[in-house]
Amino acid sequence: MKPFEHGGNICAFAKVCGCNEEEVIDLSSNINTSKPHIDFDFNALEIAPYPNYEKLYESIASHYEVAVEQMELFNGASVAIFSLFAYLKTTPTPPKSVTLYAPAYLEYKKASQVFGYPLHLVDRFSKLDAEVEEGSLVVFVNPSTPDGYCYDIEALLQKWQEKKCTILVDESFLAFTSLPSVVYHIKKYDKLYVLKSMTKFYGSAGIRIGALISNNININALHQREPAWKISAFDSAYIQEALKDESLFERTTSTLEAVKASLLEVLENAPEIVRVYPSHANYLLVKLSTLTAHAFQAKLTPYRILVRNCANFDGLDDSYIRIAIKDAKSVAQLTKALHA
Amino acid sequence: MKPFEHGGNICAFAKVCGCNEEEVIDLSSNINTSKPHIDFDFNALEIAPYPNYEKLYESIASHYEVAVEQMELFNGASVAIFSLFAYLKTTPTPPKSVTLYAPAYLEYKKASQVFGYPLHLVDRFSKLDAEVEEGSLVVFVNPSTPDGYCYDIEALLQKWQEKKCTILVDESFLAFTSLPSVVYHIKKYDKLYVLKSMTKFYGSAGIRIGALISNNININALHQREPAWKISAFDSAYIQEALKDESLFERTTSTLEAVKASLLEVLENAPEIVRVYPSHANYLLVKLSTLTAHAFQAKLTPYRILVRNCANFDGLDDSYIRIAIKDAKSVAQLTKALHA
Repeated sequence: MKPFEHGGNICAFAKVCGCNEEEVIDLSSNINTSKPHIDFDFNALEIAPYPNYEKLYESIASHYEVAVEQMELFNGASVAIFSLFAYLKTTPTPPKSVTLYAPAYLEYKKASQVFGYPLHLVDRFSKLDAEVEEGSLVVFVNPSTPDGYCYDIEALLQKWQEKKCTILVDESFLAFTSLPSVVYHIKKYDKLYVLKSMTKFYGSAGIRIGALISNNININALHQREPAWKISAFDSAYIQEALKDESLFERTTSTLEAVKASLLEVLENAPEIVRVYPSHANYLLVKLSTLTAHAFQAKLTPYRILVRNCANFDGLDDSYIRIAIKDAKSVAQLTKALHA
Repeated sequence: MKPFEHGGNICAFAKVCGCNEEEVIDLSSNINTSKPHIDFDFNALEIAPYPNYEKLYESIASHYEVAVEQMELFNGASVAIFSLFAYLKTTPTPPKSVTLYAPAYLEYKKASQVFGYPLHLVDRFSKLDAEVEEGSLVVFVNPSTPDGYCYDIEALLQKWQEKKCTILVDESFLAFTSLPSVVYHIKKYDKLYVLKSMTKFYGSAGIRIGALISNNININALHQREPAWKISAFDSAYIQEALKDESLFERTTSTLEAVKASLLEVLENAPEIVRVYPSHANYLLVKLSTLTAHAFQAKLTPYRILVRNCANFDGLDDSYIRIAIKDAKSVAQLTKALHA
């Protein structure tokens, strides 16, 4: 097993704290604190037969308002990224490079390296209007990570299309907002892919389901390269149940708004923090004043609070921390830690 | 969704029969009828955090008597096949071709095509000692599919090594036998991979876990190309529990022996069948006398029995059927159907 470079490594952190995993206040990963109502007995699930994904496809496609033929499901968004990057290499005109608007989810950089794409980084904080290479694979995460800002990318889409780019818009956190998806653009531009992770909003990183959406020709070609079964019958059942919960969005956003307001107050008044970035998602990026990210993490450790050190994000350094917007209890504990 | 070319499509068959899926007698897929004792409450599983696979790796590696560093887990054996074929293409000396001992699990042929390997088929029924191309990727499924015969491949391994072949031995059905694994060979030959599906023996096609075993250098290189999370937390919990059941092997083999004896008697006395192939696994390949596979399937349909038409296996044609060794009830129903 290799060292862990993402957030959410509760197990290792619990060992450092000398506590149980359940006692850790994990503000390092971005999983929805509001959970879907699941009316399903997983102990009674019939797992012997080979899974049939027909109903799963139908319910997810309907949720995203696309046709079943416009969507390929993967066991998680990170798997979808790797499969798409590999697939595009085999197309008649593979992208010449990857243009990644950074900072961004780390798996994009890794996938670029693994599949041998030259990588261009665009600093979206300072150079959002930078030129992109013609024929590049543009990757834009929206809402972005690790800051959660949701951009209006209509003008950018236009620019990328003029440059004949293949475009991947990662909308894994869009479900936390009321902002529009770019999914409807797949009818207008034949090199657009939209990625949806179902892990974050449905409160279940242990469930591995992500969806890649594009036109039916792209999806069919990509599907030919995929193995026959990928998704667990448990995960399939869970997501189908979760999608039925029509109250989840309202519960999520009302909790988020309340917790965000109190968390913002704490962070904006903390002398350790000089800036809190605007966010539409369920996490906040902060810039530290004098402490390093490591020292800030150490300060919170006695309070069993785990936050995300952002030093390994392109364009950021060890003065940045990402903090999940979780619940009132975690804000109270963070306040205690910061005032200690 | 594309047409289904494997066994186990109970859903479509139930529609044909006009019955519920639970009423189908599925003899088309090879899932163990004996189930592991699972003492675990899946409804209480904590699925919010990102999964940590440390314990899962430890328990599976220990089960196969290899080191954690000698194994990569995938969400199912078919995913492992696709990942390995893609990975080998990126190595300094990629295999020149795939040499597939046929008939064999269909995904191998598909993966060869997808990743652009010239494919050599070796008929293992008539030409087991055929020459293989130097530097080819040899794929041998042992016990084999769709017949279940388990070969002593020591001499073949020696021959393939002399030809500097990369070797993949698929032992997905070996757990049904007491025969030895070739896993211990990974210390002796640096281009050997052994594949284990956990789906079949542990009675759970809905669970997506498979293991690829090789030396730690190969596994480390392959691991670099893999996404961070692949396996469902549900599936991880299920398999860890299943591995604890020490009585499963004995229960499985004693059931198999008894059912196999009565099934053999039925099949060997059926005028529709001219040959039953020797099998070490939980299924039997039969050659039909005059009926086509399709007509034989149609004969069983009123009895809600689904068997595997083997016409799409290389080296076989539409006079072959695969029948799972399941339980006394299914043998009784099959007897009824054949005597009708």
